[in-house]
Amino acid sequence: MSVLVVGSVALDSVRTQSAAHDNLLGGSASYASMAASFFGPVRMVGIVGDDFPRAYMDLFASRGVDTAGLQRAKGKTFAWSGEYEANMNNRRTLSVALNVFETFRPDLPAAWRETEYVLLANIAPALQHHVLDQMRRPKFVVADTMDLWIETTRDDLVRLLGRVDMLILNDGEAKQLTGIDSLPRAAAALRSMGPRWLAIKKGEHGCLLFGEGEFFTVGAYPLEEVKDPTGCGDCFAGGLIGHLAASGTVDAATLRRAVVHGSVIASFNAESFSLKRLEGLSKDDVAARFDAFRRFSRFE
Amino acid sequence: MSVLVVGSVALDSVRTQSAAHDNLLGGSASYASMAASFFGPVRMVGIVGDDFPRAYMDLFASRGVDTAGLQRAKGKTFAWSGEYEANMNNRRTLSVALNVFETFRPDLPAAWRETEYVLLANIAPALQHHVLDQMRRPKFVVADTMDLWIETTRDDLVRLLGRVDMLILNDGEAKQLTGIDSLPRAAAALRSMGPRWLAIKKGEHGCLLFGEGEFFTVGAYPLEEVKDPTGCGDCFAGGLIGHLAASGTVDAATLRRAVVHGSVIASFNAESFSLKRLEGLSKDDVAARFDAFRRFSRFE
Repeated sequence: MSVLVVGSVALDSVRTQSAAHDNLLGGSASYASMAASFFGPVRMVGIVGDDFPRAYMDLFASRGVDTAGLQRAKGKTFAWSGEYEANMNNRRTLSVALNVFETFRPDLPAAWRETEYVLLANIAPALQHHVLDQMRRPKFVVADTMDLWIETTRDDLVRLLGRVDMLILNDGEAKQLTGIDSLPRAAAALRSMGPRWLAIKKGEHGCLLFGEGEFFTVGAYPLEEVKDPTGCGDCFAGGLIGHLAASGTVDAATLRRAVVHGSVIASFNAESFSLKRLEGLSKDDVAARFDAFRRFSRFE
Repeated sequence: MSVLVVGSVALDSVRTQSAAHDNLLGGSASYASMAASFFGPVRMVGIVGDDFPRAYMDLFASRGVDTAGLQRAKGKTFAWSGEYEANMNNRRTLSVALNVFETFRPDLPAAWRETEYVLLANIAPALQHHVLDQMRRPKFVVADTMDLWIETTRDDLVRLLGRVDMLILNDGEAKQLTGIDSLPRAAAALRSMGPRWLAIKKGEHGCLLFGEGEFFTVGAYPLEEVKDPTGCGDCFAGGLIGHLAASGTVDAATLRRAVVHGSVIASFNAESFSLKRLEGLSKDDVAARFDAFRRFSRFE
C-alpha cells in the first residue's frame, strides 16, 4: 500500500560541537519519505528550487520514493541552518530562508488523491488542511506538528485535529498545546480534540502511544553517541506510517509495532548527519534493530 | 529470604502547591523497607529519637518489617522538610536537622550478619561501608545513592562501588558521577568501577537496567496525578531487592522483573503523601499493576 507524505524539502546546514556540514538534504518530507520507504512505496509532495541537487533526486528514486508530487520552482530551495549544544538536546536555529517554500501549495497529482495512508509531516497546518481537502476517503491520516504552529497558527492546528486519525508531537508540545503538565491528562485532552490516536515523542526517553483503552510505552534505542538528531521526529512519523501501510491494518497491536518501527528508523537517523545513515541502511538492519527493541523491552 | 535494609528514618514535612503535611514518616529505610515488605520479611537498620511515634513502629510491625535493628536514641528523630514546585519534578529542601542521625553507627544484630540480600539505601557511603564490614558473604548487595554524596564524599562512594553487586542512581547522578552525558557510556563507566549491575532511574520516563550483555528499559506507570514523589526512589530500590530476595535468584530475567516491581511500588507511592498509599496496599494490587506494566510494554 502506498503512503502519501507531504512536508518540507530543505537544504540544511547543521553545526554540532564536533562537526559542521552545509547543503545537506533536509526537511520533514525528505526524512519522513526516506523512513517510510523501508516498508513500501512512497509518494512525496513538496517543493524545491532550481538549485536542488540532482543527487538528492537520485537518492529518492533509489529508495522507491516517487517524486511526481515534488514541485520544482524558480528560485532557491527552502534553507535552514541550526546548531546543537554539546548535549545534543538543545538546538538553536541560526537562520531560515523559506525561498520557494513561501508560495508552496501542495496540489496533489490526481491519481494520488486516493492514497489510503497519509502522513501530513511537519508543515503549516493550513497546508496540511489543503492536502486533506483534496483526499478521497483516506484510511488513516497522521499529522505531525511542532511548537511553531502551536504558537503562530493554533486555530488552524486545532481545527486540523478534528480531521486526522493520529497526532504526533513531543512531550513539551503536548503540554504547550493543552496547558496541562500531566502527560496522561494532556493526552486525554488532545484525543478529545479529535484524533483517536496520539503518539508523544520523548527523544532519548522513548515514546508513548495513547488510544481508546490503550496505552503503550517503549524506550529509545541506547545510542552511545548521537551524531545529529535533526529529522529524528520526521523519521519516527515516516517509519510509523510506512509500517501501518505495509500492514494494511490499524488496530492497537499494529500501531504498537508501528511506533517501534518509527523509533527504529529514528534511532538509525541519529547516527549520522542528514540522511546519510538511512542511505546505506537495509531492511535487514531495520529488522535486526526491531528485534533489539523487542529484546530490551521484554520481561516475563 | 529476608532482606536487610539500612538507611535513614525521618520525620518529614512536605509541601506541594495544593497541600502541606508535617511529621510524616519518611527516610530511605522507611520507604525501602515498606516497599520490600510486599515480597517477604524485612530487617530494618536505622535510628530514631525518643519522639518517634509509636504508630509508625506499629506500621512497620504490621507489614512484617523487623525493627530489631532500629536503634532508639535520646533526642529527636532526623527531620527533613521540603517543597515541590507545581510540576512535581523540582524539589527544594527547606530544612534538615540530623538530630540523632548525627551519631548513627549502623551496627547489626549478630543474627542479621548472614542476611543474603542487602539494600544499602540512601545514606552516607561511610555508613554503607560500615554495614558491609559486618556482613558475611551476602549473596547480592544493592546500593542506592544521591547527588549529595557524589558532591561531598565522592571517594567513599567510588570505593563502595567495588563492594556492591548493583548500583542505583538517577540519570542526572549518573552523568554527575562520571562526567559523561551519554547514558549508555556513563553506564559502562560506572560498571567498570565495580557493580556488575546498574539501574538508572528516570522518574516519569521510567528506568534503565545495564549488565554484561544486558540492557533493559521500562516506562513509568502513566499516573494522572503525582501527589507526592518523596521516597519513590527508595521504594524502587526496596521493591527491587524485595523481589530478588523472594525469587532467590539474580539472573537477568529476574532482575528485569525486579526492576518492574520496583517501578510498580514507586508508582503507588507517588499517589499519596508519605507511606499512606503503601499502608493500604495489597499483594493483589501489586500483582495487578505488574500486569498493567506488562500490558503497556508489550509488542509482538
